[in-house]
Amino acid sequence: MHIKKEIRILGIDDSAHINDKVIIIGAFFRGGEQLDGVLRSEITKDGMDATDIIIRMVRNSKYFTQIRVIMLDGVTYAGFNPIDIQLIFDETALPVIVFMRTRPDFEKIELALLHLPEKEKRWEIIQRAGTIYEGEGDNPFCIQFCGIDKDSAFKIVRLTTTHSNIPEPLRVAHLIATGVVLGESKGKA
Amino acid sequence: MHIKKEIRILGIDDSAHINDKVIIIGAFFRGGEQLDGVLRSEITKDGMDATDIIIRMVRNSKYFTQIRVIMLDGVTYAGFNPIDIQLIFDETALPVIVFMRTRPDFEKIELALLHLPEKEKRWEIIQRAGTIYEGEGDNPFCIQFCGIDKDSAFKIVRLTTTHSNIPEPLRVAHLIATGVVLGESKGKA
Repeated sequence: MHIKKEIRILGIDDSAHINDKVIIIGAFFRGGEQLDGVLRSEITKDGMDATDIIIRMVRNSKYFTQIRVIMLDGVTYAGFNPIDIQLIFDETALPVIVFMRTRPDFEKIELALLHLPEKEKRWEIIQRAGTIYEGEGDNPFCIQFCGIDKDSAFKIVRLTTTHSNIPEPLRVAHLIATGVVLGESKGKA
Repeated sequence: MHIKKEIRILGIDDSAHINDKVIIIGAFFRGGEQLDGVLRSEITKDGMDATDIIIRMVRNSKYFTQIRVIMLDGVTYAGFNPIDIQLIFDETALPVIVFMRTRPDFEKIELALLHLPEKEKRWEIIQRAGTIYEGEGDNPFCIQFCGIDKDSAFKIVRLTTTHSNIPEPLRVAHLIATGVVLGESKGKA
């Protein structure tokens, strides 16, 4: 994949779970530097609607034709609302990169799912994100991906990690999501 | 005033007026490049509470001690809710720069105020923003200011106008405010 420095990326993060409906924010970024647009939708806390709502948010956006990659912060949003990255790729034709600062604790996730309806389906969707690859260096991280080759996925993460240890589209989506819901942004994506 | 390239600025913009309560967003910026925080408050459409709410939002923020300048997009928010920049300076000890892409049409403003309560008080607050100075060049603009000298105010506007014809803290505050309220950002600050 040819990766321009100014590749357009949509980073999506969720906000604090203070209600049953949880705001998600899409930060439409130009490479690792410039915010060019903001999207907002709502998903259900511990629900099963995150994948469909993200697909709809992306496809209905005026930025849709410009976006080259979708970047996610893990594959469960708003608690354990699972995101099917293969379905997102199928329905949008856009590659998806899942960024995680640490390797997910699958034992803990499986235990948490016991308390939720449709636990097998949730578990299956989480597994569908595929192999976890580790990025080494001063700033270790993990990624999963779909619709893109491994080298390109790593390259995009490194290209956009300009101001912290998190890719800018996710860092900024997080600041917006927490700031808007709590009145002031906090923490890290 | 000594102006570092990474001077911390809070740019404030309002969102679309779809309800009686209008969201305002503060984008806490590092110079003209990096968003470091997001604040959110609500003011009343055509109300008289914008000044007090901005003062409270700034003073209660964890970023308060870092902010060096407040940047506003005009002196009426959420319709004709007037902002008293001298009072903001008195109450926060922070300089205020008002950025406008064009000279405000005072005749039109006076006419609009006729339909609102406390029109003299609104007019007086609007006038209190003082002399309007024009910035020349390829990208003309106007500013008013308080608590800062003219040269420094112009310098900060030019330093932070990095990606468009609007200072980044205001461009990004606008994207967030419209995106969050409408579901997708639109237009310019």
